Amino acid sequence: MKRGEVWWVNVDFEPLGRRLRVGRGVSILTAAQQAGVGLVSICGGKGTCSRCKVRVLEGQLSPLSETEGKKLSPDEVARGYRLACQAEVLSDLKLHIPPQSLTAAQRTQVEGRELTVPIVPVVVGRDVRLPPPTREDIRSDLDRMRHHLAETLGLSDLIVDFALLRQLPTRLREEVWAGTVGLRGQEVVSFGPLGRELLGLAVDVGTTKLAGYLVELETGRTLAAAGAMNPQIAYGEDVMARIAYAMEGGEQAVALREAVVGAVNDLARDLCTQSDHLPEEIVEAVVVGNTAMHHLFLGLPVRQLGLAPYLAAVSEALDLKAREVGLEIAPGGYVHLLPNIAGFVGADHVAMILSTEISEAEGTVLGLDIGTNTEVVLRANGRLIACSTASGPAFEGAHIRDGMRAAEGAIERLRIADSGVEYQTISDAPPVGLCGSGVLDAVAQLRQWGVVDERGNMGDHPGVRRTDHGPEFVLVAAGEEGSGREIVITRGDVGEIQLAKGAIRAGINILLDEAVLSEQAIDQVVIAGAFGTYIDVSSAIAIGMFPPLPLDRFNQVGNAAGMGAKLALVSGEQRAKAAEIARQVEYIELTNDKRFVDEFAKAMYLK
Amino acid sequence: MKRGEVWWVNVDFEPLGRRLRVGRGVSILTAAQQAGVGLVSICGGKGTCSRCKVRVLEGQLSPLSETEGKKLSPDEVARGYRLACQAEVLSDLKLHIPPQSLTAAQRTQVEGRELTVPIVPVVVGRDVRLPPPTREDIRSDLDRMRHHLAETLGLSDLIVDFALLRQLPTRLREEVWAGTVGLRGQEVVSFGPLGRELLGLAVDVGTTKLAGYLVELETGRTLAAAGAMNPQIAYGEDVMARIAYAMEGGEQAVALREAVVGAVNDLARDLCTQSDHLPEEIVEAVVVGNTAMHHLFLGLPVRQLGLAPYLAAVSEALDLKAREVGLEIAPGGYVHLLPNIAGFVGADHVAMILSTEISEAEGTVLGLDIGTNTEVVLRANGRLIACSTASGPAFEGAHIRDGMRAAEGAIERLRIADSGVEYQTISDAPPVGLCGSGVLDAVAQLRQWGVVDERGNMGDHPGVRRTDHGPEFVLVAAGEEGSGREIVITRGDVGEIQLAKGAIRAGINILLDEAVLSEQAIDQVVIAGAFGTYIDVSSAIAIGMFPPLPLDRFNQVGNAAGMGAKLALVSGEQRAKAAEIARQVEYIELTNDKRFVDEFAKAMYLK
Repeated sequence: MKRGEVWWVNVDFEPLGRRLRVGRGVSILTAAQQAGVGLVSICGGKGTCSRCKVRVLEGQLSPLSETEGKKLSPDEVARGYRLACQAEVLSDLKLHIPPQSLTAAQRTQVEGRELTVPIVPVVVGRDVRLPPPTREDIRSDLDRMRHHLAETLGLSDLIVDFALLRQLPTRLREEVWAGTVGLRGQEVVSFGPLGRELLGLAVDVGTTKLAGYLVELETGRTLAAAGAMNPQIAYGEDVMARIAYAMEGGEQAVALREAVVGAVNDLARDLCTQSDHLPEEIVEAVVVGNTAMHHLFLGLPVRQLGLAPYLAAVSEALDLKAREVGLEIAPGGYVHLLPNIAGFVGADHVAMILSTEISEAEGTVLGLDIGTNTEVVLRANGRLIACSTASGPAFEGAHIRDGMRAAEGAIERLRIADSGVEYQTISDAPPVGLCGSGVLDAVAQLRQWGVVDERGNMGDHPGVRRTDHGPEFVLVAAGEEGSGREIVITRGDVGEIQLAKGAIRAGINILLDEAVLSEQAIDQVVIAGAFGTYIDVSSAIAIGMFPPLPLDRFNQVGNAAGMGAKLALVSGEQRAKAAEIARQVEYIELTNDKRFVDEFAKAMYLK
Repeated sequence: MKRGEVWWVNVDFEPLGRRLRVGRGVSILTAAQQAGVGLVSICGGKGTCSRCKVRVLEGQLSPLSETEGKKLSPDEVARGYRLACQAEVLSDLKLHIPPQSLTAAQRTQVEGRELTVPIVPVVVGRDVRLPPPTREDIRSDLDRMRHHLAETLGLSDLIVDFALLRQLPTRLREEVWAGTVGLRGQEVVSFGPLGRELLGLAVDVGTTKLAGYLVELETGRTLAAAGAMNPQIAYGEDVMARIAYAMEGGEQAVALREAVVGAVNDLARDLCTQSDHLPEEIVEAVVVGNTAMHHLFLGLPVRQLGLAPYLAAVSEALDLKAREVGLEIAPGGYVHLLPNIAGFVGADHVAMILSTEISEAEGTVLGLDIGTNTEVVLRANGRLIACSTASGPAFEGAHIRDGMRAAEGAIERLRIADSGVEYQTISDAPPVGLCGSGVLDAVAQLRQWGVVDERGNMGDHPGVRRTDHGPEFVLVAAGEEGSGREIVITRGDVGEIQLAKGAIRAGINILLDEAVLSEQAIDQVVIAGAFGTYIDVSSAIAIGMFPPLPLDRFNQVGNAAGMGAKLALVSGEQRAKAAEIARQVEYIELTNDKRFVDEFAKAMYLK
């Protein structure tokens, strides 16, 4: 070996922002494992599962292996994709890890990535140093503050939030007449020690999960990201069950509201603890959610949302005092709610369209936010058309015999090989059940191996056994790899997936029909939402959930609704854009649509 | 008697609005007694006490009696004053009863009198009839409302109060898409059944008492008036004691706030019950009080108000959501707080100046609002100068041995005749003590009869007896006229009155000095406040509390602060005027003023 030869190289894993020094010649997969970057690897590095795809942004690797030549499409190769288990590091390297190649535990970290839009802060900080009162200068505290802001910053006609006013005399004296005020338009909403950063909170209130982000308002920097369960689950699994519960009476509606507001407050406290801040430093919040979550969070009635013609109480964007809805942030802080589109297409969908820029796309773009309700939007010929389909909770692991949420031990990736069933679990824990992406893979694999037919019926196969409850396929035998129990997929489970994917595909088809376009006209499919991020797109195509398009037209963007909330948090322009999106969207109510029954029936087939 | 001769005549008692048909020739006093109008009459109709003065507005009476010739000044005669016990009714009659001629129980009724300013409503009602939703028209409830208001009334960019929004979906359906909205500028603050009147609440929060008025906002008509005690009394008798209590900690401050807010809510409920309305029909409230009451009501800190240089947290007028301060009115209703002038001259004084129109007076006018703190204002040469003096609680009956509040059995009028002590009690009940006006009369009479000297010392007199605690004068012997106990006035009581009246007179003198005017330059003295209404002005002059001016320059106007609150309730113009008054007033802080000690010492003499 020559003098000066490079033994050690740096590998940057983006967008995680993780960097590691490794010896030349190790595989990317090994480097990732050392760096604590959880790459999906079902086959354990044999190169057969091809789930560990990464994209090279800068640097040199070993030449493309034969395996890679088979597993990667020419287009993928052209765009710099490699299999992490095959490619060896030869120089300093900068890699992009697609979210679908990350294990579930790590994918949420990606959500913390920095924003790329110009920051147009809704609340700005201004330092003030007031002349202290004297016997000759006995102006009220408020007068003193207002005159000072008028004189030094030219800000007249300001108002000071009332809850802040209740604290101001005490705070002004504690800070000896100097501090930073938060200005929101004409209103002073906060007062804190000199030079303190103003923080913002963005929250996506999902039916099942909450995602929260703590952000520096004037830089857009994300300080912390965290998720939590929506505790309303105790009152009903899906939106309709919650609405029904709220309709039982005032107390029930209050319980739902308090549950979710409490969870958001807990989340805000967690985020602050993580980043060494206090909730009262948060001066602005943005909350998005589907229309029902939006209404329940605000304490708006939902009865009219649960009965035809399914009306929102409010669809426009709202700016409310956070304290009015029970959010425990700075006393004068506001919460902004992005607009809803209709009873079943809410602010979260607006946020998704905003952050994915679908509304500004040139070509034909299909957007999907997959959940218990799946919102579908089509951008085509300058129009934005949207609908909502009741895809049900199967993808959350519900109504599936061995289904579970995406938690430790859930099988999240699965393939049937000649040798048997290969799978990967979250956190590599012993398998305890199937989360949504695992169920989807399982059905796709069973279909691919001919174990189930187009109608979802299970044929004869060594893995299939007949029970009193119908046929089922054993994926994991009891005791196998530390599993305490058998994990199967039943005919009923397949049926649940057929219903779910049928609803989604029917929605897609009706939007295409509305735009008079064929599937092949779709230039890009944007898949948002936690589940959408985790699924194997080829499995989804295999069962007919998505149109059969080249894989590189699919873009799994993670929690786009949460990202949209962050954009709206740091930019007034983005709020205006969101309002424009809500105005522009043409909503199609599928329950009224004559095409729906036919399309749904057709889309249930597994082809 | 000739045919057609009038036997029966109508007597109108204004401003009570009471009318009675009486036989010709009866005295006004008799007519008043029959009509249930409580005229003061210490001498029992002998014409010696001259307290039953009334003013004739229209109609004919018997000629002036010899007694009246002696007891009324030529100016009073010229202005139509008569003694009710002397004058006999000869024709239909319209009388004005000055508040000081009314017994205490009835004076509060006067407060209900109608307003004379143009109504410029802050909230206006508009009837709406919305198109109900259909499968084709699935706009949100809020959109539906806003579009309708824009189309039918040309009102765009409206906002709907959030608390109202929470009720709107339910209320719209209950009222089958038709109702009356309350509009406050750009905001919808209420929704009720079609055609419902919008109500307003005006409250004067005094240190001791609250006075409340329920008013129709669009007509200005007073529907009900009522008083109540300020329950904060349990935490301290005067303003300083309350501030000290609030300074003990957060809990104490909250207790004070909740006490007074609860009392205002109770008062609002009472007023509504009286007039067959509901508190949620009240869409706007105006609250006035001194600066400490204002701050404690709003939950603003008072520490800075209790320590030199005695700063208000807020002096400008505030428009707050009533729910933010805990007022239980319409969910979207506002409460307007008139501006404060300084730490010890509050919104109640602004309201008093507003309703008495002192700020617009041509000549030199002195205004007094007598209470535990007495606010004094001088209008002279285009200036408005004000100060506050700590007159103490003696006029509320406190710190006086046999003192009591103005309640049943309190001696409210007293004179010493050759035959002994004559007095009148509230509700003509057996005497149980002396209220403020009774104490004032007693000291004036003792001084007039030479029982006490200039310094307040009691000389030798058959009524004076010496005790271990000093000399005292027996006003009512035990057992006399049903009294269960003796009622005396002590040397100490005289001293309390000296302190109180000394403070007030010192304030008056300093304002005159500031304006470089003599007492005689005062064209009018306006005396506001409950106590100020009840006192005998000549007694107040006799002890040197007021400058020795002709009686007809004094004008006792009752609860002028409450009246000012009513004006501000029904008129945006009046609010603007109040703000202008607060800006215009030059405040003199007496605790800083070099003249005060001398003036106070001089003013304590009883001359």
